[in-house]
Amino acid sequence: MPSSKPEILVVNPNANAAVTDAMAAALAGLAAGTAVTIRTQTLEGAPFGIESETDAAIVAPMLAALLRQERSRYDAFVIGCFLDPGLNACREAAGKPVFGIGECAIYAALTQADQFGVLALSRTSVARHKPIYRRLGVWDRLAGELPLEISVAEAVGDVTVYPRILARARELRDEYGAGAVVLGCAGMAQHRSALQDALGIAVIDPVQAGVSRAVSEILAR
Amino acid sequence: MPSSKPEILVVNPNANAAVTDAMAAALAGLAAGTAVTIRTQTLEGAPFGIESETDAAIVAPMLAALLRQERSRYDAFVIGCFLDPGLNACREAAGKPVFGIGECAIYAALTQADQFGVLALSRTSVARHKPIYRRLGVWDRLAGELPLEISVAEAVGDVTVYPRILARARELRDEYGAGAVVLGCAGMAQHRSALQDALGIAVIDPVQAGVSRAVSEILAR
Amino acid sequence: MPSSKPEILVVNPNANAAVTDAMAAALAGLAAGTAVTIRTQTLEGAPFGIESETDAAIVAPMLAALLRQERSRYDAFVIGCFLDPGLNACREAAGKPVFGIGECAIYAALTQADQFGVLALSRTSVARHKPIYRRLGVWDRLAGELPLEISVAEAVGDVTVYPRILARARELRDEYGAGAVVLGCAGMAQHRSALQDALGIAVIDPVQAGVSRAVSEILAR
Amino acid sequence: MPSSKPEILVVNPNANAAVTDAMAAALAGLAAGTAVTIRTQTLEGAPFGIESETDAAIVAPMLAALLRQERSRYDAFVIGCFLDPGLNACREAAGKPVFGIGECAIYAALTQADQFGVLALSRTSVARHKPIYRRLGVWDRLAGELPLEISVAEAVGDVTVYPRILARARELRDEYGAGAVVLGCAGMAQHRSALQDALGIAVIDPVQAGVSRAVSEILAR
Amino acid sequence: MPSSKPEILVVNPNANAAVTDAMAAALAGLAAGTAVTIRTQTLEGAPFGIESETDAAIVAPMLAALLRQERSRYDAFVIGCFLDPGLNACREAAGKPVFGIGECAIYAALTQADQFGVLALSRTSVARHKPIYRRLGVWDRLAGELPLEISVAEAVGDVTVYPRILARARELRDEYGAGAVVLGCAGMAQHRSALQDALGIAVIDPVQAGVSRAVSEILAR
Amino acid sequence: MPSSKPEILVVNPNANAAVTDAMAAALAGLAAGTAVTIRTQTLEGAPFGIESETDAAIVAPMLAALLRQERSRYDAFVIGCFLDPGLNACREAAGKPVFGIGECAIYAALTQADQFGVLALSRTSVARHKPIYRRLGVWDRLAGELPLEISVAEAVGDVTVYPRILARARELRDEYGAGAVVLGCAGMAQHRSALQDALGIAVIDPVQAGVSRAVSEILAR
Repeated sequence: MPSSKPEILVVNPNANAAVTDAMAAALAGLAAGTAVTIRTQTLEGAPFGIESETDAAIVAPMLAALLRQERSRYDAFVIGCFLDPGLNACREAAGKPVFGIGECAIYAALTQADQFGVLALSRTSVARHKPIYRRLGVWDRLAGELPLEISVAEAVGDVTVYPRILARARELRDEYGAGAVVLGCAGMAQHRSALQDALGIAVIDPVQAGVSRAVSEILAR
Repeated sequence: MPSSKPEILVVNPNANAAVTDAMAAALAGLAAGTAVTIRTQTLEGAPFGIESETDAAIVAPMLAALLRQERSRYDAFVIGCFLDPGLNACREAAGKPVFGIGECAIYAALTQADQFGVLALSRTSVARHKPIYRRLGVWDRLAGELPLEISVAEAVGDVTVYPRILARARELRDEYGAGAVVLGCAGMAQHRSALQDALGIAVIDPVQAGVSRAVSEILAR
Repeated sequence: MPSSKPEILVVNPNANAAVTDAMAAALAGLAAGTAVTIRTQTLEGAPFGIESETDAAIVAPMLAALLRQERSRYDAFVIGCFLDPGLNACREAAGKPVFGIGECAIYAALTQADQFGVLALSRTSVARHKPIYRRLGVWDRLAGELPLEISVAEAVGDVTVYPRILARARELRDEYGAGAVVLGCAGMAQHRSALQDALGIAVIDPVQAGVSRAVSEILAR
Repeated sequence: MPSSKPEILVVNPNANAAVTDAMAAALAGLAAGTAVTIRTQTLEGAPFGIESETDAAIVAPMLAALLRQERSRYDAFVIGCFLDPGLNACREAAGKPVFGIGECAIYAALTQADQFGVLALSRTSVARHKPIYRRLGVWDRLAGELPLEISVAEAVGDVTVYPRILARARELRDEYGAGAVVLGCAGMAQHRSALQDALGIAVIDPVQAGVSRAVSEILAR
Repeated sequence: MPSSKPEILVVNPNANAAVTDAMAAALAGLAAGTAVTIRTQTLEGAPFGIESETDAAIVAPMLAALLRQERSRYDAFVIGCFLDPGLNACREAAGKPVFGIGECAIYAALTQADQFGVLALSRTSVARHKPIYRRLGVWDRLAGELPLEISVAEAVGDVTVYPRILARARELRDEYGAGAVVLGCAGMAQHRSALQDALGIAVIDPVQAGVSRAVSEILAR
Repeated sequence: MPSSKPEILVVNPNANAAVTDAMAAALAGLAAGTAVTIRTQTLEGAPFGIESETDAAIVAPMLAALLRQERSRYDAFVIGCFLDPGLNACREAAGKPVFGIGECAIYAALTQADQFGVLALSRTSVARHKPIYRRLGVWDRLAGELPLEISVAEAVGDVTVYPRILARARELRDEYGAGAVVLGCAGMAQHRSALQDALGIAVIDPVQAGVSRAVSEILAR
């Protein structure tokens, strides 16, 4: 009876279905390898991308409302944006475990290396992440964060950006001393495995990291 | 020509007009003593109080929308809630200086004492403030924070809570070593002066602190 | 062909087989729910418990030697002691992902709450953990750590200690403000679920947390 | 009856009257716009500049003595040197609010941006400020500090240094990620407005920041 | 030829000769056991005790002037007050190594224990030390600081205060988790040895710690 | 009766006798100038160098065993490796004061300058030291650490490396703002004095720093 299998809802808080698809693809290994059903969902009515503080502010209450509505249908929730918008509100709304992919990715990296690096989409993202690192207490473990200056669309769908991603990741490892690299956006999972092989250090995709925590939480029961 | 006088908009992000009135009263001295017009406004459609992470998440985009709409009419804005909801989004929206009363109050206290204490409405508020203090870098300067276990309504309108406020403030000063005390909610300004006299140390009202920063920013030009 | 299934080795770095058995029991859910084989092993020749800095120093090179020897047979390793003895040496030796259960447990807790608490076996353990928390950068997120003053044997095998564990966990939640509680020893998993239900906040068993990270790392590939 | 107007004394703790004049000029806007009288005074017998730890040590007790003598004549005091020499002694001596312009400038910047930068007169000043930033808890919010390698005389009186100031400020914004810039010396206020317009981010003059805090403290009563 | 022996000057920055005598007594062992001459000197014209920020401010330039005058006669200098008044100015003035006994005592304690405690003369001293601990970066290694509420005269000359000192030191060890205890004033050395024996953990006298650093610096040449 | 003279054992935890000899040479001044006997000893059976986490893990229990065996013959012990391997285990084993040269060197530097720099043998050493600096709380006082990319053998026996050492030390002083430089390995003492003269700032040899603390501890009794 499949309905008895625990279920996790992963919400892509932007309206870009290509990102949601990329999330589902990134989660295929986890989905196949664990006795938990993982569903992905695009947040209806959300901006096409979370590219400003305003975008993040807009989706926060929408996410909380969605989780409140779906609270009885899922065992855990994952917010699929590196900024973890509305995480605390979502926890209040869901009354179930809710994981933010940004936090989960950073902590996953820290279980594998003393210093972590982050690849951000843009210079603006880098600035946006700084207060988060201080709030989490990981400031002194951040080797560095570098902007790729690519769009979400390029991150998700354009394989030609890989050389730039690799170059910046190498810089994090060699110039900044990063022992693990976090992909600082939900749509870059397709590059994770190749990057990790090329670098020889752990590369963390935040969507995988967030869902892994949700799966673990459920299976540990 | 009064229209040439700079103007500040202070938004009370909850729908409780009594809080807005208390803010205006708290600002009377500043308004009378500076060549800046200070207007207060209740955020239409907001929850009656900001008493949860969800409330804070809900008002954030509403505040940003309001500031975007009013951006050409004011010289600076003040978000009138100790949690500073939506502060970064509001800055994007306004393109003018926007001050959060929580941050401003804490920094004002730190200009007068090495260690500050905070009087929170409730135990839940105390927990909510912790990540803020880490994010701001003021964690090691916080002597302590104590919950009053009173409602916003009591804070704003019930003078009988003063003895409890005084007792907790004394505890912050004498047991925790606070050299300045921050009122951790927008509605407690009526007690500030009496508290400061009774304690002999600085007591900071966040609304006054936030608006003072806005006034200073304008007059320094 | 079961041999193609990825395998994780969890090493109990003390010679107490009852602890190894408790680990295996704690991992039953994870083992059943994921397409990864999880093996547990007692470290031959180790002290009966890791109850001093000397014990931890003794097992560190033994663990590294074991992992070097087993490196080709497993896909990842987990060091089953909250102190994470020899973690960096083990990483050098294994050339595969190696996870320390202490670090993993703390980070797992931080994905669910702003402030975490720890239940330690003894007062001495509490002192031993302090430099670890500073090194990890989680000092300001630690709500508090309380000693249970029970032995490993009691933790693993004596159900009568549960009321004491519950009392101390409640103290962490209610007096110290912990939003998640970490069991600060490898042998307490049997109490995790009951504690979590009784407290209403996340309770993290370090063995489960460490193995979850290893499983996730493998399945994310 | 003008004598009833509150009065603030701003002490320039060096003997350079040109700096005192520059302070008065910087405060013209605040003086005109608030119902508080602002007086500036050169510290008689002080060194011509505060250009060493010894200079700072020398003026500290002189400032305290002056404030003790003037304590009944003013409602608040401002120490007009970025190093805040003798601030705690002055507080003991005055028994009235005393503000240090260095601290006030840094906190003012932090109410407008996550990361602040500082323009110092010289490389030596940069080194001197480091323990201050740690003591204040703002270390992790400092984007960077750059030396201008100009003298106080040049800062106060030589308009030809502006291009160098602007270049370094741009570097703080663009290379270091500063969201606000603090002028790290009492005499640079004449450049503040032009710099702020050119940079598009907040530029804080410490004398204005310190006096603004004093004014606010008085008007909030 | 005794004049070829290196010489250290230890300055007691208060005018209380009994404190200077206590310093000399505390240094007898070091003086007898090392090939360095240790001289102690009372700062002429200083306040009778350093019991306020004003006292500390007053002696700072006096100390710098003394060291400038004596710079050619000594190989190193030690400032004999736990607050390290004028330390940086003294370094500029002397152009020789200058050690502050407060800093040296804290670092000496940290070479022997993860967490240190401090016994302060009074509650006011405790507050005065807090910014110092933050500035030094030792905040998170401070187990706690307790006030003895005794005067300098009692600390130096009244043996009946020993039981109180012992009780507070035990509290630091047992309740606060201190692994080493620092005597937070220059005059308590007479109790150090007995305290250390009674507690079974390191007890650090700051005068001994400061002079030890000076001796070491000289002998290491 | 020479046997009554206190004795310190300095253990070189690698099997390279040339390093032990270099230690003895570095300690000649201290040995001649203090009434304490200083013995140096090579750790039998240790790796030839401590060049990995595994090496450090291997020697830790060997050091503890040696100190346990020698505990009644010495008054204090010094572990002669910058990584301070097994320091806590050695303290348990010895029941006497045990000092780590790495910690002692860092704290010695901090008694002479606000910001310290470190010269490491290699890039790998730099990475290995980072968690140590965080654990000790000195992260924000580290100006920088630079790799020399020389071997222990070169550090100890090859005078031709001096220009490289000097160049990197100058870089720490001039580019990174270090006010004191720590030699980040046990075998570089021969260069200390020349470096200090050339740089004009304190240069700390860790073996001297560690033994100085042990001597001070004994003479302070």
